[in-house]
Amino acid sequence: MSDPARQIKLGMFLRPAGHHLAAWRHPQSQADAGVNFRHFVEVARTAERGLFDMLFSADSATANAVFTENGLRRMHYVAWIEPFTLLAGLAAVTTHIGLACTASTTYEEPFSLARKFASLDHVSGGRAAWNLVTTGNHTAAQNFSRGEHPAKTQRYRRAREFADVVLGLWDSWDDDAFIRDRESGIYFDPKKMHTLAHSGEHFDVMGPLNVARSPQGRPVLVQAGASEDGMELAAETAEVVFAAAPTFEEGRAFYSDVKGRMARHGRDPDGLKIMPGFFITVARSRDEAKEKHAYLQSLLHPEVGLALLEQRTGLDLAGHDVDGPFPELPPGEVISSRATLIRDMAMKDGLTIRQTWERIAGGRGHFDFHGSPSDVVDVMEHWFRNGAADGFNIMPPVMPGGLDDFVELVVPELQRRGLYRTRYEGSTLRDHLGLKRPVSRYAT
Amino acid sequence: MSDPARQIKLGMFLRPAGHHLAAWRHPQSQADAGVNFRHFVEVARTAERGLFDMLFSADSATANAVFTENGLRRMHYVAWIEPFTLLAGLAAVTTHIGLACTASTTYEEPFSLARKFASLDHVSGGRAAWNLVTTGNHTAAQNFSRGEHPAKTQRYRRAREFADVVLGLWDSWDDDAFIRDRESGIYFDPKKMHTLAHSGEHFDVMGPLNVARSPQGRPVLVQAGASEDGMELAAETAEVVFAAAPTFEEGRAFYSDVKGRMARHGRDPDGLKIMPGFFITVARSRDEAKEKHAYLQSLLHPEVGLALLEQRTGLDLAGHDVDGPFPELPPGEVISSRATLIRDMAMKDGLTIRQTWERIAGGRGHFDFHGSPSDVVDVMEHWFRNGAADGFNIMPPVMPGGLDDFVELVVPELQRRGLYRTRYEGSTLRDHLGLKRPVSRYAT
Repeated sequence: MSDPARQIKLGMFLRPAGHHLAAWRHPQSQADAGVNFRHFVEVARTAERGLFDMLFSADSATANAVFTENGLRRMHYVAWIEPFTLLAGLAAVTTHIGLACTASTTYEEPFSLARKFASLDHVSGGRAAWNLVTTGNHTAAQNFSRGEHPAKTQRYRRAREFADVVLGLWDSWDDDAFIRDRESGIYFDPKKMHTLAHSGEHFDVMGPLNVARSPQGRPVLVQAGASEDGMELAAETAEVVFAAAPTFEEGRAFYSDVKGRMARHGRDPDGLKIMPGFFITVARSRDEAKEKHAYLQSLLHPEVGLALLEQRTGLDLAGHDVDGPFPELPPGEVISSRATLIRDMAMKDGLTIRQTWERIAGGRGHFDFHGSPSDVVDVMEHWFRNGAADGFNIMPPVMPGGLDDFVELVVPELQRRGLYRTRYEGSTLRDHLGLKRPVSRYAT
Repeated sequence: MSDPARQIKLGMFLRPAGHHLAAWRHPQSQADAGVNFRHFVEVARTAERGLFDMLFSADSATANAVFTENGLRRMHYVAWIEPFTLLAGLAAVTTHIGLACTASTTYEEPFSLARKFASLDHVSGGRAAWNLVTTGNHTAAQNFSRGEHPAKTQRYRRAREFADVVLGLWDSWDDDAFIRDRESGIYFDPKKMHTLAHSGEHFDVMGPLNVARSPQGRPVLVQAGASEDGMELAAETAEVVFAAAPTFEEGRAFYSDVKGRMARHGRDPDGLKIMPGFFITVARSRDEAKEKHAYLQSLLHPEVGLALLEQRTGLDLAGHDVDGPFPELPPGEVISSRATLIRDMAMKDGLTIRQTWERIAGGRGHFDFHGSPSDVVDVMEHWFRNGAADGFNIMPPVMPGGLDDFVELVVPELQRRGLYRTRYEGSTLRDHLGLKRPVSRYAT
C-alpha cells in the first residue's frame, strides 16, 4: 500500500464527443453528445467508477464556429449544454466525483459567481471547484455589450480583485452560524455573519452572501493560465492548476516554476496540485493504439484541417500541397507567437502541412500520446515521479469510447503499481485531492 | 373524462422549510432545508407524484436578513441554495415536472441567461421555464457594484429589450440545423444558423447562442409583476403569470385585466395561464385544519412578528399592546402604499397588532386558506370556473409536511371531480400546460 498523499490525481476533461476535432465522426463517439444529457451522465458515472478526482469543463462564451467554404463544419461543441448547468445536473446523479467548472472573471459578477459555486458545493455535498479564467477569446465582448475585450493586464487586475471578493463572500457565514433552535426560535447567530463591504477598483460588493458556508468551507480554486500573470496568480491563490505542456521537459519547467513561486506567498507547495492535460489513445497493444490513433486522424477532413491551421496561424495556405512540406515564410513577415510555435514545430520535426494540422487537431498543445496500458502508465509515472505533475487531466480522443478504454485499461495498471487509489478516500473533492479545508478569514 | 385543456394547472412554489415565517420551528418541516439538497429532492419527487405541472422558485439577490434586537432571527431562507443551481440538480432526478426559475433582467446578462435556461431545457428534456423579474429589492444594487437600483420604469424598459434579445438568441439555430452526418463530415447547415446582431438602447449582442435550439423550442416564459408595466409586458410576452390575489374578487379582476390586454398584441388568451399563489393549510377535517393553522401561528415569536410588521409598514410600534387594536396613525403622516394597505386591512377587519402580523406571516399577500380537502377544492373550483385562475401556485405552509398533505388529500379530490390530470399528458412543460411549441422568428 503506497502513501495516498503520493498518488496520482486524475481529472476527466469533458468535451461532448471527445477531444479530437473529428471525434463526432468516430463510431465510438456519441455524435449528438453536446445536447444529450444522458451521454454526460454515462460519462460521469464511468469516470466515477474509474475513481477520478473530478470532472472538469472548459467554457467559451461564444459559439466559436469555424467555417470552411463548402459547408463542412469542424466543431462538435459549437452549441452544447452550458457547463455549469450540466455539472449541477451531474451533481445529482453522482456521489463522489468532483465537479470543476470554468467561469470568467471578465464576463461574470463576483456575487453571482460566488453564489452559484457555493450552491454547487451544497448540491454536491462538497465536490465543487471553480476554474478561474479571464477569457482569452476577444470575440466574447460582442455577446456582452462591451465595445472591446479588455487587454490581458487589465483582465488580470480585475481577476485578482474578483477572486478576493469571491473568497470574502464565501466566508460570509461561519460554519456554525446556523443554530436553528426550534425551542428558542433562534435561527442564526448574528455574530457569525460577516458583511464584506468590499469597495475596490472594479467592484463594490456589500454582502453577506445569501448562501451558507459550503461543505468544503469553499469550493476548490482551479486555474489554467500559463502566462506570467497567470502563473503568479496561480502561485498565490490556486489549489489546482490545469497545465498545458506538450513535452515532459516543458511540463517539468512549468511545474518547478509555479511551485517555486509559492514560498513567496507563504504557501506550502503541497497545497497546489499541478495536473497537465494528457491526450491519450490507449489500446491493448501498442500496434492497436497506433492504428486507432491513425484511424481518428483519417477522419479529419482535409478542408477542416486546413481551415484549423489557417485559423491558428493566420497564414493563407491555399495552393500548397498538403502532403508537401510546411512552407517557409517570407522573411520579415510578422506572425503571432502561436503561429511561430506551430511553424517552428513543423520545421523542427519536418512535418507536412497535413501532419501539422494533425498535431493540433487532438491535444491542442497538450501532451499527445498513444500506446499500450503499460506504455501510458510508464509515461504518467515518469512525469509524476520526476517533478512534472501531481496528476493529469485526461482528454479522451472520443467519448464515451475513449474514456471506457482508459478506465478499463489504464486505471487497473495505475492501481497495480500503487500509483492510484483503489477507493475514494472521503466524500469531498478536498478529501480526494488531499487539500486542507480552508479557515475563514474571520476566524480568530 | 373531462377535457384536459380545461383542467387545473398546478405549480409547486418552493421555499426551503415552507412558506410560513415560522415553518422551520414546526415538527413537520426540515429545519436545515435551505442547504439540504436531499430535502429538495424529496419535495420534487412528491410534487411529481402529485402530477404538478412545475416546481417554481422565487429568487433574491441579497441575504435579506431581518434582525430583531435580542438575536431572534426570522428567516429560514436567508442563505440557501441558489435556485437555478438547485433546479438544474433536480432536473437530473425527476422525469416530468417542469422547472421554473426566477432570474433578473436588471442584474443578469441576456447572453448568459439565454444560455443557461436553454441548457436547463436540454438537461431536463424540455421542462424549463424562466420567470422574468426586474428585481424590486433596491438593496440588490449593493451586491452588484451599482450605485443605485434603477427605478421601475427604467427597469421595465431594460426588461423589454432584454426579453427580446433572449428570445432572439433562443432562435439562433433551427431545430434541424445539426445534421451530424458522419459519412460526409457535415456537422451543421450554416443556412440554419442565425446571427442575431442585436444593437439597442441597453444591449449589443452578436450571437449566435452557443446552445442548440432546446427541446421546447424555447423555455416557457413566466412573469409575476402586477404593476401596470408588469401586466402589459405579461400580456405581450408571458405564457404563465404567477399572480398574487388575496381575494377571489381581486383575482378575477386581475385575470380579466391581463387576458383582456392580450388581443391588442394579437395573442390568444389560452396562450397565457394565470396561476395565483395559494397558501393552503389542509387537514382531514375543517377543525383539524383550523387547529393546524393556529398552531403554526403560535410558533411565530412576537418579536419576529413585530419586526416583520415594522419592516413592512415602516411604523414604530414599540409601547403598543400587541393584543390591542392596530394603532390609528397621526393625521398627515406619510406612509408607503404597502403600509397603507396593511393599515386599511387591519382597520377594516378590526385586527389586533398580533392578528395583523399573523395575516402577513404566511401567504404574504397571497390567498390564505385552511380547510378540509373538500373545502379547499371547492375554493379552487370556484376560482377556476369563474374566471379568476387557470391554475394555482401552491404554497405549503411547512415543507415537506404541508406538501405531503396536499398531495395526499387535495390531489385525489381534484381528480375525483375531473378537475385535474390522472397522469402526465406528455413529457415537456409545454405539453402539461397545453402551450404551443413556438415557431422560430426565422421560420418562413
